Amino acid sequence: MPPRPGGAVALALRVSRHSTPSSNLAPSFALQHINPAHVRPFGSLFRSHTSAHDTGSQSSKPALFPPKSNSRPLSGRPLPQGRSAFLNFAYRSAALLGTGIGFLGVLVAGFFIYDATTYKESATSGDCHVSELALNPRRGGPKNLPIVEAFLDDYDNDEAVARKDKPRLVILGGGWGGVALLKQLNPDDYHVTVISPKNYFLFTPMLPSATVGTLELRSLVEPIRRILAPIGGHFLRASAQNVEFSHKLVEVSQLDAHGNEVSFYVPYDKLVIAVGSVTNPHGVKGLENCFFLKDINDARRIRNKVMRNLELANLPTTPDDERRRLLSFVISGGGPTGVEFAAELFDLLNEDLTKRFPRLLRNEISVHIIQSRGHILNTYDETLSKYAEERFARDQVQVLTSSRVKEVEKDKIIFTQKNDDGTVVTKELPMGFCLWSTGVSQAEICQKIATKLGAAQNNRHALETDTHLRLNGTPLGDVYAIGDCATVQNNVADNIISFLRGLAFKHGKDPETLELSFNDWRDVATDVRRRYPQAVAHLKRLDKLFQQFDFDQSGTLDFGELRELLKQIDSKLTSLPATAQRANQQGIYLAHKFNKLAHAAPGLSANEIRDGDLDEACYRAFEYHHLGSLAYIGNSAVFDLPGGWGVTGGLWSVYAWRSVYFAQSVGMRTRVLMMMDWAKRGLFGRDLMSF
Amino acid sequence: MPPRPGGAVALALRVSRHSTPSSNLAPSFALQHINPAHVRPFGSLFRSHTSAHDTGSQSSKPALFPPKSNSRPLSGRPLPQGRSAFLNFAYRSAALLGTGIGFLGVLVAGFFIYDATTYKESATSGDCHVSELALNPRRGGPKNLPIVEAFLDDYDNDEAVARKDKPRLVILGGGWGGVALLKQLNPDDYHVTVISPKNYFLFTPMLPSATVGTLELRSLVEPIRRILAPIGGHFLRASAQNVEFSHKLVEVSQLDAHGNEVSFYVPYDKLVIAVGSVTNPHGVKGLENCFFLKDINDARRIRNKVMRNLELANLPTTPDDERRRLLSFVISGGGPTGVEFAAELFDLLNEDLTKRFPRLLRNEISVHIIQSRGHILNTYDETLSKYAEERFARDQVQVLTSSRVKEVEKDKIIFTQKNDDGTVVTKELPMGFCLWSTGVSQAEICQKIATKLGAAQNNRHALETDTHLRLNGTPLGDVYAIGDCATVQNNVADNIISFLRGLAFKHGKDPETLELSFNDWRDVATDVRRRYPQAVAHLKRLDKLFQQFDFDQSGTLDFGELRELLKQIDSKLTSLPATAQRANQQGIYLAHKFNKLAHAAPGLSANEIRDGDLDEACYRAFEYHHLGSLAYIGNSAVFDLPGGWGVTGGLWSVYAWRSVYFAQSVGMRTRVLMMMDWAKRGLFGRDLMSF
Repeated sequence: MPPRPGGAVALALRVSRHSTPSSNLAPSFALQHINPAHVRPFGSLFRSHTSAHDTGSQSSKPALFPPKSNSRPLSGRPLPQGRSAFLNFAYRSAALLGTGIGFLGVLVAGFFIYDATTYKESATSGDCHVSELALNPRRGGPKNLPIVEAFLDDYDNDEAVARKDKPRLVILGGGWGGVALLKQLNPDDYHVTVISPKNYFLFTPMLPSATVGTLELRSLVEPIRRILAPIGGHFLRASAQNVEFSHKLVEVSQLDAHGNEVSFYVPYDKLVIAVGSVTNPHGVKGLENCFFLKDINDARRIRNKVMRNLELANLPTTPDDERRRLLSFVISGGGPTGVEFAAELFDLLNEDLTKRFPRLLRNEISVHIIQSRGHILNTYDETLSKYAEERFARDQVQVLTSSRVKEVEKDKIIFTQKNDDGTVVTKELPMGFCLWSTGVSQAEICQKIATKLGAAQNNRHALETDTHLRLNGTPLGDVYAIGDCATVQNNVADNIISFLRGLAFKHGKDPETLELSFNDWRDVATDVRRRYPQAVAHLKRLDKLFQQFDFDQSGTLDFGELRELLKQIDSKLTSLPATAQRANQQGIYLAHKFNKLAHAAPGLSANEIRDGDLDEACYRAFEYHHLGSLAYIGNSAVFDLPGGWGVTGGLWSVYAWRSVYFAQSVGMRTRVLMMMDWAKRGLFGRDLMSF
Repeated sequence: MPPRPGGAVALALRVSRHSTPSSNLAPSFALQHINPAHVRPFGSLFRSHTSAHDTGSQSSKPALFPPKSNSRPLSGRPLPQGRSAFLNFAYRSAALLGTGIGFLGVLVAGFFIYDATTYKESATSGDCHVSELALNPRRGGPKNLPIVEAFLDDYDNDEAVARKDKPRLVILGGGWGGVALLKQLNPDDYHVTVISPKNYFLFTPMLPSATVGTLELRSLVEPIRRILAPIGGHFLRASAQNVEFSHKLVEVSQLDAHGNEVSFYVPYDKLVIAVGSVTNPHGVKGLENCFFLKDINDARRIRNKVMRNLELANLPTTPDDERRRLLSFVISGGGPTGVEFAAELFDLLNEDLTKRFPRLLRNEISVHIIQSRGHILNTYDETLSKYAEERFARDQVQVLTSSRVKEVEKDKIIFTQKNDDGTVVTKELPMGFCLWSTGVSQAEICQKIATKLGAAQNNRHALETDTHLRLNGTPLGDVYAIGDCATVQNNVADNIISFLRGLAFKHGKDPETLELSFNDWRDVATDVRRRYPQAVAHLKRLDKLFQQFDFDQSGTLDFGELRELLKQIDSKLTSLPATAQRANQQGIYLAHKFNKLAHAAPGLSANEIRDGDLDEACYRAFEYHHLGSLAYIGNSAVFDLPGGWGVTGGLWSVYAWRSVYFAQSVGMRTRVLMMMDWAKRGLFGRDLMSF
């Protein structure tokens, strides 16, 4: 039972050498040794010890042990010989076990002592100072709404008082981007306000696990206020409606207790838009019959729906075909979310359902994934998607590739499937549950903002920012956009060219006649590398590029040639994926930059700051480092690592998959809760309840 | 840090005596002792040990230890003397800590190994036999509905096959009564079916804790199927509508996937009605503006509502009076539920809110309890209610006694309060939240049943049963009613008298002339004691009673006198409280009786069974043993123990209160979850989120 008893003994010896205070125990134990019957559980060991502790005289052969021997209890006296190996082992185990349990006891006791300190008697609710402006904000702005210039807790403590005059950093959204920013921000540089309709951060990658109860809902969410506490930020549970860039005001609205909409302005010095994205309906009819998986409530709805279908299927009055329909689960969208949900669902049905429901149900259950592309997980390395498909095939999860959903009805889903010969057939599938997880599209506020900024925003799917994550079309250093709602735009060519043109004019040259020697080109390239880190990969062999694009072999690049060269690089720069990973990196990037900006500004000499671009002057451009993607596919996981490395595996990979997210998790609280949940699943399985 | 190092050493000694195999360690450690720098963390200890284990020659003074000494490593050699007490302590702690951590490691490793075994690869979903009758039940009964004679899983395994022909025990409701019955029932005697609209058992006493997140919702519920598993019972998620006693059929209905009501019959040999009770509206207007606390969903609704109010109160645009209203929490009903909710709410506001919200909110929060009686917890000993009231007073929880709610409006509650001088004044209280917890009333199905049974049922509030918990007016041994929905009726007088009359007639005597001598009376009393255990207390001094009621001092009791005597005893028997405790005891009682009945019947000789009363022949009547009541009142708890003992106390009593419920809890799962939750609260506080 103990891993290496020897180890225990080593420790035991080590201890025994210095057991001066309790040396008089030796006899009483020695006596016990004579009689194997004395191999007792831990409790009794301790008891016998303590009793012995009271007085050495309890030993029934005191004569053998003259007092002086107390100083050297382990000396001279012959050890009982010829003990059986079993007894030795038993003794050792007992000792190890005993100490171990004792140790546990200490831990538990320790916890209780700590716990006892966490119960507060009624707090002294003494008076607190609240500024008049916080209670009755003055009105203003284009729509003459109340402007929130002061907060209720601006005077609650000294830090708050100190912060209330710092530059105002307003963050829209409490998702990956926003939270990553908050966790990296210095506590004392900004007066931070987070505005979000949800007062919690959701650990989205694990959401599929919550739909079947592998994880509990609360284990995936962290109260934003908890995250804000260290930087003394403010939280407003409301939704941003619009931004008045010229007035530096965010228009916010919220329903009051009686359901009336109340709007107000929140002023900002720096604004970060991180509102994320919404589900993409792809213009399909009947999505009201579908479930989605973006929010924690979605997870609960799904969980209840699955259970309700099982309960209905279990009713004796349910006809068999209806039962099959109820037990037909359809997932539309073969991306990570869809695949992981399918996997978790399968786990539930396979590991827990069978224990508690009639076997008939298990036999009549069917899970289907409808994927528009040729493979599921199509963003992953093909070997991985193939592996996933094989696995699902074995698990009797049907994967319908090259299929597009046409319409979702109450009890069936209609889709077209393209055969290998190119013919398209329309099929329908009776279903009792349909999950819609087919990509994301732009949130309403982002559309409003894009329209407002007009020409500066040309992307229908996301807000365009420059490589410093500044929202295009807004005053430099005012507004940033990160996460799913934004896309980093690098039109290298135009920017560089216009910059060079400006430079040319400064030197009174006609840009059209400007000729770049190889050295000039190297300088330009360096500049490009600095401003567009993503482009570095494509600027490896400068000489090659130079020759390749020096069409007239003039030994120099003219403007036309240079533009061509840069355009080609542009074309190679793909837009970044809309993942938690990217949002997270962008949030951290902004935090570090803001921390720097808060102090850098004064130190910079004017000439360093080119056309008032403080960001560029004191911080590098954003660079995305892809760390790989991973997906759970049912007692197995796939890892799509950078450089085309793909890893697949069995149970070990599941634990690996968990560890990654465990490490990624937002805080200690969620980590502990996740562990508890995983332990719970192992001990009791998922609970088949709906409420 | 270690609790009693002595103890550890004792163990260590015990071990060291028998460390034959690893005896050659002594040297390597002895050397280490010379150098204090060797006090190393656990890991290194083990390392040094194992390395030493490889070969004794690693000791740098091998000469000192000739091979033979291996047999007695601890002999002769002088111990290093004059160690500083600190070093000794350090060594000992290191050893203890090391072993402890090692032990923990083993446990964790053990768990992971176990956990790994809980992941099932795709289950072999082989064919399974399902009877035709289960798929297409035949129709019949008064309403010609489908009759569920066979279940989908009747052939899933051998036990199921064996059970399917046993007597059918149908239990309506999955509350305390039903579950207590299930947990005590023998696995092989009955074909059990539980019918309930909820597929989980709810641990009601802890419900208030769940409203503020001290406990998670899932920790208070246990899937009924989990409880049914050991006895191979069936569960139908549906609600009982009526009972056809003559046909032995329960009419059950459930909404199908499309919301249409589907009704069917479930046949029974024994039926147990344990459907509980519903909230009592007391005919007050505007209860739609109130929250209730009977179901787990109620807890979530309350939790979200409380959070939403806090968030609204935190908005800068909320006027101050509106803020005060939002933060005014009213509890109507000063019973245990109301009081415990008030306490938990106060804890939330006092321990967690203050950390995360502006202090202003804490100052403007008010909690009010409206109680119709003179004291809260009025069923408890008065000293206890007084204590609770004082405590609340100190916690700024307002207790409004002798007050009756007249009407609840959207944003205020109107109530009348009776002053000490008897004058009644009408008051109103603006509120943002109102909990309605003012007692229970009869569920709809019970009303239907009562009407159906007509004269046999005369209680407007609950179903009447005899002392064997058999529903009055139904064939003996067919139908039982337990828990809140039932009340045990002991009209001793009528029953005994009619019984005696019957006896008299048998002996051809005219009952009116029947005279009971003291001995006869003693026999009658014994009979009464047996049939009405609750009456025992009132049948102590038989002789006294005899004299007292022998009005004509005839030395005998005639019928009139006997009736008077019994009537007086009747009047002393109060009806039992509608508590989980009673339901639980009744459930256990029925289980034991059913277990007995299943085997007893054949063994009984006809004359033992008086007028076909099998229950009475082979099992005692139900007797309620009050174990006391307890309530949490905010960092303190009150215990109302039998015999008028009242205990109150601080934190220790809170832990005691928890331990009671921990022990009472339905199973290992809920216990572990509760522990996790309590630990969680201690570590991270309650999370202030709503979803």
